[in-house]
Amino acid sequence: MTRERAYFEASTLREHGRLCPEHTPEVYHFDRAMSLMGMRYIEPPHIILRKGLIAGVEYPLLADHMSDYMAKTLFFTSLLYNNSTDHKKGVAKYSANVEMCRLTEKVVFSDPYRVSKFNRWTSPYLDKDAEAVREDDELKLETAELKSMFIERAQALIHGDLHTASIMVTTGSTQIIDSEFGFYGPMGYDIGAFLGNLILAYYAQNGHADQANDRKAYKKWILKAIEESWNLFQKKFVELWNKHKEGNGEAYLPDIYNNSKLLSVAQKKYMTNLFHDGLGFGSAKMIRRIVGIAHVEDLESIKDASRRAECERAALHCAKTILKGRRQFESIEQVIEHIQSFDQD
Amino acid sequence: MTRERAYFEASTLREHGRLCPEHTPEVYHFDRAMSLMGMRYIEPPHIILRKGLIAGVEYPLLADHMSDYMAKTLFFTSLLYNNSTDHKKGVAKYSANVEMCRLTEKVVFSDPYRVSKFNRWTSPYLDKDAEAVREDDELKLETAELKSMFIERAQALIHGDLHTASIMVTTGSTQIIDSEFGFYGPMGYDIGAFLGNLILAYYAQNGHADQANDRKAYKKWILKAIEESWNLFQKKFVELWNKHKEGNGEAYLPDIYNNSKLLSVAQKKYMTNLFHDGLGFGSAKMIRRIVGIAHVEDLESIKDASRRAECERAALHCAKTILKGRRQFESIEQVIEHIQSFDQD
Repeated sequence: MTRERAYFEASTLREHGRLCPEHTPEVYHFDRAMSLMGMRYIEPPHIILRKGLIAGVEYPLLADHMSDYMAKTLFFTSLLYNNSTDHKKGVAKYSANVEMCRLTEKVVFSDPYRVSKFNRWTSPYLDKDAEAVREDDELKLETAELKSMFIERAQALIHGDLHTASIMVTTGSTQIIDSEFGFYGPMGYDIGAFLGNLILAYYAQNGHADQANDRKAYKKWILKAIEESWNLFQKKFVELWNKHKEGNGEAYLPDIYNNSKLLSVAQKKYMTNLFHDGLGFGSAKMIRRIVGIAHVEDLESIKDASRRAECERAALHCAKTILKGRRQFESIEQVIEHIQSFDQD
Repeated sequence: MTRERAYFEASTLREHGRLCPEHTPEVYHFDRAMSLMGMRYIEPPHIILRKGLIAGVEYPLLADHMSDYMAKTLFFTSLLYNNSTDHKKGVAKYSANVEMCRLTEKVVFSDPYRVSKFNRWTSPYLDKDAEAVREDDELKLETAELKSMFIERAQALIHGDLHTASIMVTTGSTQIIDSEFGFYGPMGYDIGAFLGNLILAYYAQNGHADQANDRKAYKKWILKAIEESWNLFQKKFVELWNKHKEGNGEAYLPDIYNNSKLLSVAQKKYMTNLFHDGLGFGSAKMIRRIVGIAHVEDLESIKDASRRAECERAALHCAKTILKGRRQFESIEQVIEHIQSFDQD
């Protein structure tokens, strides 16, 4: 870890901890010169969420906790809550976290769409699928727009790497760690990271099913977690907006957006755009986990390559179609139907 | 002028001067501690373009020069040319130009849409029109999106105040000055500022017409300047993109966007979005010049208030409909037809 990386990890943890202490481990001490951080020990029985998803453990509070974390950290670091002076101070502070952003740009938005020695996939089964990703012009056009949005759009202080291995859980606690990618970027990137990795976990279940456990009930639980995470996030985010609508948020000043009908239309439009951004980024993150450099243990732990490839192909096709058609989805329920339609089981 | 303001003026002038020396006065010396700038004297017969437009002077090279300036300064400071490391260095440097941005946010995107003691208009003629702006929910929704884009989206190093009084001209020379609003923002803001102010100049002509000169020919010339400015800008911008397509531009890496059909579709999409952004920002700038704090001399110099109000009302209605319907326009020629349809003459 470089020193800069530690600095941005500590900074993001602290800022998100201030906004959502319930789900962010406390930083007791950070020494920038020494790159030394003392933070809360996330004690057993906390485990990495991804491990729990592979083991088939249900987390009844996951959607509630994650929607809380995302709603609070994203809303309170956006122009819906802050004036532009404060917002730009935040943007400037994190604008030096360039190397981590460049890593994301490369591994998420670039490498999967070109021949790169870093890419890998379950070969030979997915050779044609990987090639199809590189030759899908429509997919590449959409990905270019997401990439530019990732670099250009300082919408909120995002975690920047909110996959299921950045989350530690017990059945009653959810703690978000590894925030060294934190910077002001598009909110949809965090939402997509979390939902996209849950979708990957869903598609991996067929590979983990055995005679003792067909994983059918667990797959239903994952879908419910996806559905509730978005719906609760949306609800809580809009509630925060309503609660602070008379405040200093630069984007919708109270003396302009002063009637409830207008504000409600504005909120609907905002949430729809955010939903589509989330679907776009989430799909991009799924694709890169199947044909890019870094894969996920959910799928990697399926030992039989042919069986793994089947799971991966379903996930890949699902992601490609969502990314390209994301603006057609009007609700998370429609997305869930779409996910199920690619499930070969 | 604050010291910070002088620093950003000198910095933007220098950077734009490096990219387009033909149309940017040279900075000979800048002393930050003293806020002292020595720059090229824009000698007579150069005058402020707005004065020339009021006097009815044709500038045959204006569209060519302005399209050159906008294409070069915007393309070369965007992710189409730069990698993200260099881009973010630029963003960070200008991110402290907060006060000037806040001024824009207030006078362009906020005050015209609320009751504010700073607003004024040709009263009583436009009382109802000003009220209608404040009560137009659809207009306010669209304006909110433009405002957030203005603050959040670091697309290129824009001039930030590219109206017709920031441009000095002779029939053979065009020099862009007053760049103290420079920062990394949406490209469409510069394009819209220039085109929107030309449209205001167009609507002012009926107020300047007299028996000696009905201004009809001049109005045609202004429309031609609008049409050519966009079309030449688009042509030159895409030419720069094609010329540098094998370079380091982060947004469309050559080993991904490697076939000419795909690149051409990407360019069409990019230019369409930019066109609509320009129309949106240009309309917002027109509206604020009619019902906001700072008006334009083109209209202010029409002494008869009733006649002035007629010109202003036509401009205001044109701007409102373009802002709300901007995504329907497919070419600048359609916009020109639309402009003419509101001309009462």
